Amino acid sequence: MQDLGVALIGHAFMGRVHSHAWRSVSAVFGLSLEPRMTIVAGTDRARTEAAAARLGWQHATDNWQQAVHRDDVQVVDICSPGDSHAEIAIAALEAGKHVLCEKPLANTVAEAEAMVAAARRARERGVRSMVGFTYRRTPALALAREMVAEGRIGRVLQVRASYLQDWLHDPQAPFTWRLDRARAGSGALGDIGSHITDLAEHLIGDRLDGVSGQTATFVDSRPVPGAPEGTRGEVTVDDAAVFTARFAGGALGVFEATRFAAGRKNALRIELNGTDGSLAFDFESMNELWFYDANEPNTTAGYRRIVVTEADHPYLAAWWPPGHGLGYEHGFTHQARDFVEAIAAGTDPEPGFEAGLHVQRVLAAVEASAANESRYTRIEPEQSLQNP
Amino acid sequence: MQDLGVALIGHAFMGRVHSHAWRSVSAVFGLSLEPRMTIVAGTDRARTEAAAARLGWQHATDNWQQAVHRDDVQVVDICSPGDSHAEIAIAALEAGKHVLCEKPLANTVAEAEAMVAAARRARERGVRSMVGFTYRRTPALALAREMVAEGRIGRVLQVRASYLQDWLHDPQAPFTWRLDRARAGSGALGDIGSHITDLAEHLIGDRLDGVSGQTATFVDSRPVPGAPEGTRGEVTVDDAAVFTARFAGGALGVFEATRFAAGRKNALRIELNGTDGSLAFDFESMNELWFYDANEPNTTAGYRRIVVTEADHPYLAAWWPPGHGLGYEHGFTHQARDFVEAIAAGTDPEPGFEAGLHVQRVLAAVEASAANESRYTRIEPEQSLQNP
Amino acid sequence: MQDLGVALIGHAFMGRVHSHAWRSVSAVFGLSLEPRMTIVAGTDRARTEAAAARLGWQHATDNWQQAVHRDDVQVVDICSPGDSHAEIAIAALEAGKHVLCEKPLANTVAEAEAMVAAARRARERGVRSMVGFTYRRTPALALAREMVAEGRIGRVLQVRASYLQDWLHDPQAPFTWRLDRARAGSGALGDIGSHITDLAEHLIGDRLDGVSGQTATFVDSRPVPGAPEGTRGEVTVDDAAVFTARFAGGALGVFEATRFAAGRKNALRIELNGTDGSLAFDFESMNELWFYDANEPNTTAGYRRIVVTEADHPYLAAWWPPGHGLGYEHGFTHQARDFVEAIAAGTDPEPGFEAGLHVQRVLAAVEASAANESRYTRIEPEQSLQNP
Amino acid sequence: MQDLGVALIGHAFMGRVHSHAWRSVSAVFGLSLEPRMTIVAGTDRARTEAAAARLGWQHATDNWQQAVHRDDVQVVDICSPGDSHAEIAIAALEAGKHVLCEKPLANTVAEAEAMVAAARRARERGVRSMVGFTYRRTPALALAREMVAEGRIGRVLQVRASYLQDWLHDPQAPFTWRLDRARAGSGALGDIGSHITDLAEHLIGDRLDGVSGQTATFVDSRPVPGAPEGTRGEVTVDDAAVFTARFAGGALGVFEATRFAAGRKNALRIELNGTDGSLAFDFESMNELWFYDANEPNTTAGYRRIVVTEADHPYLAAWWPPGHGLGYEHGFTHQARDFVEAIAAGTDPEPGFEAGLHVQRVLAAVEASAANESRYTRIEPEQSLQNP
Repeated sequence: MQDLGVALIGHAFMGRVHSHAWRSVSAVFGLSLEPRMTIVAGTDRARTEAAAARLGWQHATDNWQQAVHRDDVQVVDICSPGDSHAEIAIAALEAGKHVLCEKPLANTVAEAEAMVAAARRARERGVRSMVGFTYRRTPALALAREMVAEGRIGRVLQVRASYLQDWLHDPQAPFTWRLDRARAGSGALGDIGSHITDLAEHLIGDRLDGVSGQTATFVDSRPVPGAPEGTRGEVTVDDAAVFTARFAGGALGVFEATRFAAGRKNALRIELNGTDGSLAFDFESMNELWFYDANEPNTTAGYRRIVVTEADHPYLAAWWPPGHGLGYEHGFTHQARDFVEAIAAGTDPEPGFEAGLHVQRVLAAVEASAANESRYTRIEPEQSLQNP
Repeated sequence: MQDLGVALIGHAFMGRVHSHAWRSVSAVFGLSLEPRMTIVAGTDRARTEAAAARLGWQHATDNWQQAVHRDDVQVVDICSPGDSHAEIAIAALEAGKHVLCEKPLANTVAEAEAMVAAARRARERGVRSMVGFTYRRTPALALAREMVAEGRIGRVLQVRASYLQDWLHDPQAPFTWRLDRARAGSGALGDIGSHITDLAEHLIGDRLDGVSGQTATFVDSRPVPGAPEGTRGEVTVDDAAVFTARFAGGALGVFEATRFAAGRKNALRIELNGTDGSLAFDFESMNELWFYDANEPNTTAGYRRIVVTEADHPYLAAWWPPGHGLGYEHGFTHQARDFVEAIAAGTDPEPGFEAGLHVQRVLAAVEASAANESRYTRIEPEQSLQNP
Repeated sequence: MQDLGVALIGHAFMGRVHSHAWRSVSAVFGLSLEPRMTIVAGTDRARTEAAAARLGWQHATDNWQQAVHRDDVQVVDICSPGDSHAEIAIAALEAGKHVLCEKPLANTVAEAEAMVAAARRARERGVRSMVGFTYRRTPALALAREMVAEGRIGRVLQVRASYLQDWLHDPQAPFTWRLDRARAGSGALGDIGSHITDLAEHLIGDRLDGVSGQTATFVDSRPVPGAPEGTRGEVTVDDAAVFTARFAGGALGVFEATRFAAGRKNALRIELNGTDGSLAFDFESMNELWFYDANEPNTTAGYRRIVVTEADHPYLAAWWPPGHGLGYEHGFTHQARDFVEAIAAGTDPEPGFEAGLHVQRVLAAVEASAANESRYTRIEPEQSLQNP
Repeated sequence: MQDLGVALIGHAFMGRVHSHAWRSVSAVFGLSLEPRMTIVAGTDRARTEAAAARLGWQHATDNWQQAVHRDDVQVVDICSPGDSHAEIAIAALEAGKHVLCEKPLANTVAEAEAMVAAARRARERGVRSMVGFTYRRTPALALAREMVAEGRIGRVLQVRASYLQDWLHDPQAPFTWRLDRARAGSGALGDIGSHITDLAEHLIGDRLDGVSGQTATFVDSRPVPGAPEGTRGEVTVDDAAVFTARFAGGALGVFEATRFAAGRKNALRIELNGTDGSLAFDFESMNELWFYDANEPNTTAGYRRIVVTEADHPYLAAWWPPGHGLGYEHGFTHQARDFVEAIAAGTDPEPGFEAGLHVQRVLAAVEASAANESRYTRIEPEQSLQNP
């Protein structure tokens, strides 16, 4: 089998998860190409070398350009902060490397547009690109997508989606780069609001027409860890963002992203109500999909808890017997598998950079609305959200 | 013990529930005044007499004025449709009768203002008035109110409230007066959105500063039951309404009221996130309050399910042992009790008509915002939401 | 409509609940006979009179014989402790009164046999009798019964039933008559184990063949409230009882009754597994029935939460709209309704005293097994569990 | 770092899971010794080689002896059916290899005794052995163990444990070796009943004194897949097993293992009730532990859902942020880590073969009781369940 050399850029949380996926994907799924964990790039040489040793990468570098341009690298996997995405992705694509880029695709619409342009040019040459809206590949959500597509809940009329975390609810929680607009682009909105935006559109197969938003920053500054006593970092991003929305097809949506929901650890929740039924999901119980079939007789209808661990469920045939649930990182393994197989097949993987750009436009529209008395703000449609 | 003659106006769903409350309240709680089920008023003589016989009212009339002006009536309990509230309530107050009026207080802000004026004049003469935001007296929500007031979740920063029903999700569901703006004022917004608006403000003890809303009518007309084949009633109210909101104290809110959430029967849900914890409730599990105490150590913190059936919980000492839960109508029994005791004590019951008017202003602001590109719309503060 | 005079014996917890049912049943359901709350009997004159005034009984007495023999009494409703059941019920039946007797039917098999004999003699004369296994009339459980009978879960192979309470888990909880074998017959076994025994047999429509049991008394003595400091009452009943069982048709059962399950307030739980599906119930969420349809395709099968509040569900047409749940006492209202209607129709209500005797035999077999190294102990079949 | 060569015996379900653990453990935890996936042994050469290639083992053999005796192998990991455990484990221990053996330790008490004897001899020479009761290392259950040990629920008085699966509920489900007593030893009892037996004892820190059991085989024969039409395999093991139990310290237990609980996929459930609180767990929601603190005031006490994903929770520091849950196979990674670290530290890992033998004695006692009218059957205590 042919090798596929991977260069990983970044080895923090996301880098660790991606490493886990690259290490496991072939054994779990059996692939058409054999991914090799060739090199990891970081900013600090010593720490990057330690990460390489621990995570199983053959080489380490503190120079991402070097990693990107190696001959034995065919895939560049970008897990560095958002402000570096555009430069790295464009360089990699131009060097003919397939690119998997973490979300949000970029920190600004302009960057994302440049990335899409590069991806389109590269596509002409058979070079693939993908943005890491990984939750699409959580089996329960992949099943939801299938069920909507099969018409199991009819025409979707309402969507309520929230992504609730709580790591900032304590006013003394420390400052991090994620609270700095220059590095992170936005706060809860971009970090986790991007996920529910992509998911909602993906699940119902329709795009947002416009949004009306509000954002809030509850705590203005926070202590900087490691800095002299009393040093505080200014919080320049939103702590929470809420928006109502209209889909092109008429569905009504409510969205919320927050880091202040005390007790909600990673509650990515989405509920779809259609003319023939409903679907509901909460990532804190990620192996379950709730389905209400409105065509059942009244007396026996009810939200049913589908334990999404059957061999017939998306991705599950490769894993364990029913009831032996999957965890967070499995979505990344599925993503790695689908990306590799798309490369092998010479097709464009989903979601492409266009989807990443589109989400960026939604985030920008939410911010624009919030800055303009919450006025309804339309989102410019991409020519195509799907790959052409 | 002194009698308290009650006249009930209306004997449909709400009238039945109120009858149940008047029948039971004295035996359950032991009251300072003894309510008598004196007379029920309806629009059809025969049906009203049948209702009186069935529900236990001594007299029946198809002339509400007659009921209101009887000497043996001290309380007028208004359960008729919203477009009749103002006239009846004002007449009753002017006749010196204590008035309990179902929500929403009226169909328009102007009517509600007139009712408040009448209530204030009557209050000078010791005549009491109350609006039926009954969910405040669901024990789990009464407990939530106490816990917020005691500071158990600190300063509340976020509120998410939804009231989800599904009786219209089928496009063939029949037309009713509730879908006619002239009778009902508005749709899901006024009928059930009013409840979550009042509850959110009541629970956190703060008022809404402004809202940004969207409404939707998914099905424009529906078959009229009993009418000739093909007759359709035009739906002139919202099927669903969503709004984001800001509270005067800075908290951020998301609200949704809908009749299209297939599978959600009466899911009044509210979650409050504070600096020190969270509270969550769903009326479909009405005997439970979920509490997250953020001051617990990380390792043992978790949302706890308080089964609100202990003798120390609000209203529970009068009922059954722990775990032997209450049902929907018990909130009305609690309301009747508190109203009677306020009359006996010569104090003003909560919530007064001012609270009803305020909610009316919020509903009007949501509609105004929805009609104006969702622009943020401020709500004029009442001079006092509490009774003076 | 003809009156039906009721005499209530006992006005503690059960007496209060039954009073609530008698007060409401006619208004809720509309009955063929009109129950009158004629007289309540207690042991203390003053307290009984106070109870009568509060609960709405026309007369009071401290002499139950007097109540039972009144001409204006047609129904005797026995809510006194178990050691008084036999004497009162037999006297009432012989006096030609219809008898509703709380469970357990008696404290011993011998007493229960005498009661069944009296009931059979009375039945000849058109006098009705019923034992208060009220949970059969919880709508979710009545629905479960219907679904099993319709074959929705196929042949039932396994039953797991538990009734978990926690009011004794604290070793300092006070002594009560319920811990005295002479008054109560047994402990958790008879008090709550009797309910799950009856329910399991009722739901699957089969009788227990035999049991293998163990019982435990974790706290030997407890402080007597109101007695001089240091006075302790000896606990002569079980704190918890567990047994495995075999049904006549081959199904396997596991049962547990306990007052020591800290945090479980009134968790009557029962799950049935059949060849075609499963049903599960927990009284702490009494408006829900969980149903697994094994004939659904693998990919969309799941336990569904039926919110048992639809007009088509048992007893629900008389109550509130979907999602507006019922509470604990409603089962007693349903029981009163079915008892009155059976009297009116001249039919025997279910469950009759035979069912009460049968449960008594099961309890005795559990105790016999526990006393005999848990040896499997067969239960003598009644000639008929159903009324003849 | 020093290498640790591993030989895996068996590459079916368990072999795959163990492979996943060996592949990941070092990257996740950073270990004191570096495990190498040296060789996998199977019964069919071609299939074993394919498995080696897929799962990442350097060599393959159809001769387990060869694998066991290689110089570059220090660890033998036994994942073959139960009837092969004793021979392989004893040979490996005698060859000086550390042994990790899947549960149940053996198919009979006699085999298990021989294995313990071998393990004890080997232990003298510093050779380590461990039995795979992996669920002990599910973080939520490891946390439960810590909380019991810290006294958070006081003295444990009751245990209810069940392991519910449904893969046999369909009478047409195919025959497998797991239904053949000669290969599998017993049915649900040994396969999954062994897990809850070990867990219950482990969690409360006490051993079972005796049991009273019943077993059932609901379907006597099943179609043999791949065999000529009409060939049926005789089911010679239990489909379901239930037993009540007494612990040495007086606690009362109820246990159930079944493969017929339609809709329950892998519902390993355990609840402990103590004098000061309760703990509850269900593997279908494996990242959650429910805790009831009986020392909380009545008004705010409730079962709390601890999402066991905090860095302070057992094993979690090595994984993902809060709320990003783990899956089934992670327990095996934890097991591999603890086994390697015990080898490195020269200490005996838990649970040792003694624990495996003890569980075997419990299973045998359940079967003996079931065969003897469910009579209470005592379990001979090991001299030590803990390693000496």
